[in-house]
Amino acid sequence: MRAAIMRDGKLALGDMLVPEPGEGEVLVKTLACGICGSDLHTLKHGSEFVKQSRESGGGFDMDLDKDIVMGHEFCAEILDYGPGTSKALKPGTRVVSVPMTVRDGKVQTVGYSNSAPGGYAENMVLFEPMLLAVPNGLPTEHATLTEPVAVGFHAVQKSRIQKDEVPLVIGCGPVGLAVIMALKMMGIGPIVASDFSPRRRKLAEQLGADIVINPAEGSPYKCWSDLAAKDKHGVDMPVNLLSGSPTFRNGVYFECVGTPGVISQLMAGAQKDCRIVIVGVCMEQDAINPLVGINKELNLQFVLGYTPEEFAESLHNIAEGKIDVAPLITGTISIDGIPQAFTDLADPEQHAKILVVN
Amino acid sequence: MRAAIMRDGKLALGDMLVPEPGEGEVLVKTLACGICGSDLHTLKHGSEFVKQSRESGGGFDMDLDKDIVMGHEFCAEILDYGPGTSKALKPGTRVVSVPMTVRDGKVQTVGYSNSAPGGYAENMVLFEPMLLAVPNGLPTEHATLTEPVAVGFHAVQKSRIQKDEVPLVIGCGPVGLAVIMALKMMGIGPIVASDFSPRRRKLAEQLGADIVINPAEGSPYKCWSDLAAKDKHGVDMPVNLLSGSPTFRNGVYFECVGTPGVISQLMAGAQKDCRIVIVGVCMEQDAINPLVGINKELNLQFVLGYTPEEFAESLHNIAEGKIDVAPLITGTISIDGIPQAFTDLADPEQHAKILVVN
Repeated sequence: MRAAIMRDGKLALGDMLVPEPGEGEVLVKTLACGICGSDLHTLKHGSEFVKQSRESGGGFDMDLDKDIVMGHEFCAEILDYGPGTSKALKPGTRVVSVPMTVRDGKVQTVGYSNSAPGGYAENMVLFEPMLLAVPNGLPTEHATLTEPVAVGFHAVQKSRIQKDEVPLVIGCGPVGLAVIMALKMMGIGPIVASDFSPRRRKLAEQLGADIVINPAEGSPYKCWSDLAAKDKHGVDMPVNLLSGSPTFRNGVYFECVGTPGVISQLMAGAQKDCRIVIVGVCMEQDAINPLVGINKELNLQFVLGYTPEEFAESLHNIAEGKIDVAPLITGTISIDGIPQAFTDLADPEQHAKILVVN
Repeated sequence: MRAAIMRDGKLALGDMLVPEPGEGEVLVKTLACGICGSDLHTLKHGSEFVKQSRESGGGFDMDLDKDIVMGHEFCAEILDYGPGTSKALKPGTRVVSVPMTVRDGKVQTVGYSNSAPGGYAENMVLFEPMLLAVPNGLPTEHATLTEPVAVGFHAVQKSRIQKDEVPLVIGCGPVGLAVIMALKMMGIGPIVASDFSPRRRKLAEQLGADIVINPAEGSPYKCWSDLAAKDKHGVDMPVNLLSGSPTFRNGVYFECVGTPGVISQLMAGAQKDCRIVIVGVCMEQDAINPLVGINKELNLQFVLGYTPEEFAESLHNIAEGKIDVAPLITGTISIDGIPQAFTDLADPEQHAKILVVN
């Protein structure tokens, strides 16, 4: 099968053997696969990613000296069943799946594993209990975005944000946009969002952000504070009677950038008692000033992935039209176009989400 | 009045003018004052402390080029009232107080302020609305510990720890011991605690820790995991059906050390979904690995101080015998003994809490 293979920290195009479905597994044809920012990070910081995952029990244990096929946002078609499967869905059924399988009793993340190649190849093996049939009428390209939509939905669920709290989204790449879509769908707002890229700011607006800031021109934190200094009826929040200081509505800030220094920047910009949800995946060591967190009694919630239930709900929300993912898709390519797409994605003006379509 | 004065990063003994009670303030005689680890940190890292407090809106804005009298854990006796006071408590009444006053419309932290000298002097001015009368029969030395007890109580309240969750306390200095006392009082346990110092481990045991670890001999995280791998009836927690991995009861880890590297150590030691409460006050920049937090979906809650209600409840709990603070007090000195006490406190074998008694 054709594949874009991670080898020696680079992407190589080539042909490889079609994988064999093992116990409980299903062989599928990859119909479409999104390129995720984490894959770009992994190509650059793979050894740090693997080292820290091993130390922290994460499901990303790979041997980078051997070939790896990435790609964990996919829609596929069932071709054949391995042993020990119930075969509930007919061959030809379109499916999405949490990108995980169990091989030899060990969980493997599809797309971050030596034995479970991901969606940057023509075929994959998936884990039958994880498969969800794509509803008729839902375009394959939209179903493919179930995974990134689930990432945003999980982050918002984990934040426990309430309707009277004010969100701030820092970074409007695919992760930030998925957070914005989830907030919008849940009726939470006004949503303040921030990104240096005009194209991403436009997408943020289109997908539900109410106020979108260019941080080169104004502070998103100042914008948030001005807004959260008033209640939902536009009335000034009460002043602290003792200190005379202004008070603010509760803040939930979403860190959707994932590069060193950004967590510290959010902590510095936050008002007292803000909750900061770290959705961006920073694979390098980072510096923080604990005293800033202490003085403001901040809360930092790190998040990863989603539950199978959140994944299923995300597919449902896309199928029901509660979330419109179409604006996210800014390009489609073939497998042979993947190396170039990794380069193109470095420019936020060019792309949000590129899909590999077979 | 006699005072131990912070001047040029050192403690100097000297005499200074008795402060004048302003609007809403009360002049008191300091009866006793505890020496807090934060004061030791401030003497060493004062400029960083002030810089970060200014940047983060903390209530610790001082000019370190001018004299400062520290000391914020105190019991005092009312001497005289300033203008605009209700004089509800008679002169001679023993009081404790949240260490804050309002001068010229600005909140000042008593003991971290150029204009509001703290308990390392014979007299202070306090803010009348904050005063709480010490119940008859409660020894002055015990009432003095209301403040550190409130710090531990607040940290535990803020953690929202539930009875079926398992706490781990890293560091058994006065802050860690206060956390242990609060957990014990609230019936939460088993409490696992860890400290390199034999004396502090003994105190931790005496004040309510169920399992106390010397981290030079064994991992407190391993100990916690072994314990939390069983439910409260001693039955093994269920295995994750999909991955075959063990599961654990919810963990709430209290960071009570406050030096660089400890937050990262707790993150590395934590199991999935643990909540880490940062009670120790680290005044330097610190490094973390976000990916460790992400892989485990950790939550970091920074905490500071207490609410006036928690402070009042702490006094009540000490007076009612729900918390026995007597073992904490390992020495009493006069004001002239403060500089030596700062040196002595560097050795955890010698002391937990030293009280300055007038």
